[in-house]
Amino acid sequence: MPVTRTFRLAEIAALVGGETLGDGNLEIHGIASLKSAGPRDLSFLSNVSYQSQLRSSQAGALLLAPANRDASNRPRIISEDPYLAYAKVVEAFYPAQHHVAGVHPNAVVHPLARLGNGVQLAPFCSVGKDAVIGDRVRIETGCVIGECVSIGSDCILHGNVTIYANSRIGERAIIHAGAVIGSDGFGMAREGEHWRKIPQIGGVIIGNDVEIGANTTIDRGALDDTVIEDGVKLDNQIQIGHNVHIGAHSAFAGCVGIAGSTRIGRRCTIGGGSVILGHLEIVDDVNIAAASVVMKSIRRAGDYAGLYPLQERSVWARNAANLRNLDGLERRLRYLESTIGGKSRKTR
Amino acid sequence: MPVTRTFRLAEIAALVGGETLGDGNLEIHGIASLKSAGPRDLSFLSNVSYQSQLRSSQAGALLLAPANRDASNRPRIISEDPYLAYAKVVEAFYPAQHHVAGVHPNAVVHPLARLGNGVQLAPFCSVGKDAVIGDRVRIETGCVIGECVSIGSDCILHGNVTIYANSRIGERAIIHAGAVIGSDGFGMAREGEHWRKIPQIGGVIIGNDVEIGANTTIDRGALDDTVIEDGVKLDNQIQIGHNVHIGAHSAFAGCVGIAGSTRIGRRCTIGGGSVILGHLEIVDDVNIAAASVVMKSIRRAGDYAGLYPLQERSVWARNAANLRNLDGLERRLRYLESTIGGKSRKTR
Amino acid sequence: MPVTRTFRLAEIAALVGGETLGDGNLEIHGIASLKSAGPRDLSFLSNVSYQSQLRSSQAGALLLAPANRDASNRPRIISEDPYLAYAKVVEAFYPAQHHVAGVHPNAVVHPLARLGNGVQLAPFCSVGKDAVIGDRVRIETGCVIGECVSIGSDCILHGNVTIYANSRIGERAIIHAGAVIGSDGFGMAREGEHWRKIPQIGGVIIGNDVEIGANTTIDRGALDDTVIEDGVKLDNQIQIGHNVHIGAHSAFAGCVGIAGSTRIGRRCTIGGGSVILGHLEIVDDVNIAAASVVMKSIRRAGDYAGLYPLQERSVWARNAANLRNLDGLERRLRYLESTIGGKSRKTR
Repeated sequence: MPVTRTFRLAEIAALVGGETLGDGNLEIHGIASLKSAGPRDLSFLSNVSYQSQLRSSQAGALLLAPANRDASNRPRIISEDPYLAYAKVVEAFYPAQHHVAGVHPNAVVHPLARLGNGVQLAPFCSVGKDAVIGDRVRIETGCVIGECVSIGSDCILHGNVTIYANSRIGERAIIHAGAVIGSDGFGMAREGEHWRKIPQIGGVIIGNDVEIGANTTIDRGALDDTVIEDGVKLDNQIQIGHNVHIGAHSAFAGCVGIAGSTRIGRRCTIGGGSVILGHLEIVDDVNIAAASVVMKSIRRAGDYAGLYPLQERSVWARNAANLRNLDGLERRLRYLESTIGGKSRKTR
Repeated sequence: MPVTRTFRLAEIAALVGGETLGDGNLEIHGIASLKSAGPRDLSFLSNVSYQSQLRSSQAGALLLAPANRDASNRPRIISEDPYLAYAKVVEAFYPAQHHVAGVHPNAVVHPLARLGNGVQLAPFCSVGKDAVIGDRVRIETGCVIGECVSIGSDCILHGNVTIYANSRIGERAIIHAGAVIGSDGFGMAREGEHWRKIPQIGGVIIGNDVEIGANTTIDRGALDDTVIEDGVKLDNQIQIGHNVHIGAHSAFAGCVGIAGSTRIGRRCTIGGGSVILGHLEIVDDVNIAAASVVMKSIRRAGDYAGLYPLQERSVWARNAANLRNLDGLERRLRYLESTIGGKSRKTR
Repeated sequence: MPVTRTFRLAEIAALVGGETLGDGNLEIHGIASLKSAGPRDLSFLSNVSYQSQLRSSQAGALLLAPANRDASNRPRIISEDPYLAYAKVVEAFYPAQHHVAGVHPNAVVHPLARLGNGVQLAPFCSVGKDAVIGDRVRIETGCVIGECVSIGSDCILHGNVTIYANSRIGERAIIHAGAVIGSDGFGMAREGEHWRKIPQIGGVIIGNDVEIGANTTIDRGALDDTVIEDGVKLDNQIQIGHNVHIGAHSAFAGCVGIAGSTRIGRRCTIGGGSVILGHLEIVDDVNIAAASVVMKSIRRAGDYAGLYPLQERSVWARNAANLRNLDGLERRLRYLESTIGGKSRKTR
């Protein structure tokens, strides 16, 4: 992507609230990774494991944490939070593009739908009866907006998004391609060997500043609503079951699945591929490692994990065989303890 | 969603085959969760963990199991299966909406496709050559129906569904947005370091009364067909590999993946996020817990699980380190046993 | 699917470089599984577990490995690699269909987009400004091609695929329905309790001969590009995070998730449902079992696994309880060892 303008290093320091070391007049043409940066680029240390790349980098200037103040003598900006500063610099170089308002002649808008000012509606979108689309909303090709859907101002919907009837989305949402909002929850009752579908009559309520990843799905509630609070960030291919409630500013990495009626607190982070069972409660500020399974409610903030360690296949096979019989192993240990008549201390 | 009519409590009892306790003339305006119900609403105990909500609920009437007959003295209906009764009550209050038949001028239907009576085809759908769409089928915006696809009567396809050529779908299917049916199975042969694609020439055959969740994908068979029998319910983001066979009335929660050629019996339930490897056979009436991995065929009905327990991250780390060396731990135990010369009993 | 012609058995043997045993003049009308084949069909042993089907099969001829040369006395072809031979035979019976070039009047192509010769563009596709579509590319209904996207010659895009701006795709790609390429990576910085989005300004670069499964998502890079090298095969519902690099001829089964900035070597295979964490490096020729989690870089080629064994639920529960306290179990063992004063050998 082409940048729109250049900045002096000192201008960037002011922008991010950092301290300039070295030539503040250096003209910076862009921001780039350590590996790709040239002498006109600003770069930064995103991950401590990249420290070795620092020396070989061609970057003309650097964005560093106070701890790395002297890691280089190039022109540099010292910032308390280089990652946040990096975010601000990227924004400065690549400001959001102004979109072109207008409804494409190949879009179908129900006469009773209401579009705000400056709405951009791409071809092959349909907007249902009584839907309300806020000002400056941009909707890309192939989106389906059901009846009575409301979308707040300044939202962006990428291609082929489907929003079922009655879903409510706040302001400034970014919804990536293929996402589905408001599909039926998975509710049914056994009737003999058959399943009887339970009509899902709840809705989906999404707050402000929410981002929803590509092909992520959020089911509507069974009776009450599924709720995603302000500032929640969902990566791609996440599945949110009916009546889930996600507290503000929580962030889930890709491929997470949350079963129905689970309530997750504020500022939680869930690692990619994790599964959270239904009807649980997770308090604020809980961090779940990737690929973990939450089977019980979590009442205390903190970091949790449950990943099976990867090993060479043959080693894994031996360990897994023992794991299949761990209870027996514990019994053998208990027997030895009773034989010897001693025990370190109560461990269970 | 607005309800269409009201019911007397005794009418509802008759509808669900339950017993009325208290004022059967009470006029009920809707059904709601314990938390949201008002004095004109019927509510119910969906989960035993919600019993504490019962007392504080404003619900005017309740739907209870015989065991909870005296859990409240409000007007109530006693039903052998309150969850099934709840399903029937929701249906009564929110009957399926009659759709408006007609082909939108912005849909493209091949002249050799055949549409039944009362078909509703939304804008931006395409229906391929020789496709056959049954009576009263409703197809929402953006669906792609390939050549020679057949769809039975009374099916509903939500937005942006893609059905590849030659797939056959029975009657009354509900297919949610973004689902893909009939994509190529993942079949290829090594040729040096390259992969050679094996054309996938089988099809997909889906029975009657099947529900398919949002963004779920079902691959076509390699030579024979992928088969989903009657009454199967698939939640969102499920992946069904080529030549899988799923027996009638089985239900899979979200994010399940089934590898190729596996055969699953009737009335099985698979918990969310589970993975079932390929070329396995699972008999009828098997229940797999969420997030479990099935590596071997299952020959006996019953409940199975394989979830790594979640713990605080530091505790997990210590336990996982031991798990990585469980075989060594077992060897140490064996050595002690040989030293002491005793053993509780044969446990392996 | 109807076959287009028939072959003599000896013709097929020549085609696959195999040896004919029995009547080489036998006319073969198709290829089918052992279960479905009739007396005019060629069949093959795809999996050793199907050997019992061989006897009962009605197949008129067989494709066998040298080791199974005498497993049947029917007319047969002996091939060093029957699976690869099978791939070639299917291709011969079902050659790729010639598509019908042309831009459907219901497609929207920006005047500054460039379409090659023989492009087929189905209804309800949009092609953005400055996009470049190669010769003979086939794009099915509902695809969204963003600005500046380039697609090499002979690619096939199935229905409802979304390709974000600036993505580059090589030649002969097959992209299945609902796939999303170039969506924003999941990048954001904490700012108080809020998340600040980091504009994702990198792109996606996909080599030649890549296949991408249905509803798979590939994120664009943060600063640098996400790269998928030549010949990579991705099954359905795979999630590729930003700045991931996948080496040539690697193949991933369904539902795999790869977190950001991880680099995977050439000719790797990743089993279905596996999760690979971010910022890792995996060398060439690594095979990861299904449903495994890769938490650390893998520096040595080989086979790796980390699957929790499935058991009957009650047995699992006991073993999992012990796993939760494995560290304590190890301590008890250590105490016994210290009491007895002996130890087999250093195992930790």
